[in-house]
Amino acid sequence: MSDPKLVYSSHVFCCTNLRPEGHRRGSCAARGSEKLRNYMKARAKELGLEPNVRINSAGCLERCELGPALVIYPEGVWYTYQTQEDIDEILQTHVVEGDRVERLMLAPDQTEPRPTTTASSPA
Amino acid sequence: MSDPKLVYSSHVFCCTNLRPEGHRRGSCAARGSEKLRNYMKARAKELGLEPNVRINSAGCLERCELGPALVIYPEGVWYTYQTQEDIDEILQTHVVEGDRVERLMLAPDQTEPRPTTTASSPA
Repeated sequence: MSDPKLVYSSHVFCCTNLRPEGHRRGSCAARGSEKLRNYMKARAKELGLEPNVRINSAGCLERCELGPALVIYPEGVWYTYQTQEDIDEILQTHVVEGDRVERLMLAPDQTEPRPTTTASSPA
Repeated sequence: MSDPKLVYSSHVFCCTNLRPEGHRRGSCAARGSEKLRNYMKARAKELGLEPNVRINSAGCLERCELGPALVIYPEGVWYTYQTQEDIDEILQTHVVEGDRVERLMLAPDQTEPRPTTTASSPA
């Protein structure tokens, strides 16, 4: 049996986990993820991306030090983001155009933030 | 550029959204999803499935009438579940063996529960 077709062509999960203030790992919500997730959801609606795209909140995704973090399925691509401009770029470039926002992508084995998030990765 | 490898070979999102009592759509949490998600997370750990498998909580997945609902990525297969036995079967059959638990699967366009969840689908 082959699997049913996807319910969402892009299913985005934004971590909105909140840890107590002063926790050594920090948390995505402490870094502002909830407001940015709400912005992303509203923008996706404004852009007419529903109902094929869904912007969900999620519990801890275990990328706390790199957060706010989100993952987009079915492709399983991870991003960090800090501003509404980051969200706009992820929506337009990844979700709408099917491309990737390299400056914001998280590597699978990455545990520390990159030195900068605006320059390209060094060779 | 090809996408990085997946962080989780199975990334499970269990809706734990709670609506106010009496809401016409109900909610997964009102149907007991939080306890069952905690059970699933504990069982995945006991079965040694970490760190390749992650059992996450998620906000509303829009399958309220069919809940508790979960979705497993990257394959994007949806399930409804009501008991620890359902969870055990999803973990063993889907996550461990890579097979499907047909009696619990949700169709993409399904909006109402199936008449029974124990019999096979009619032809």
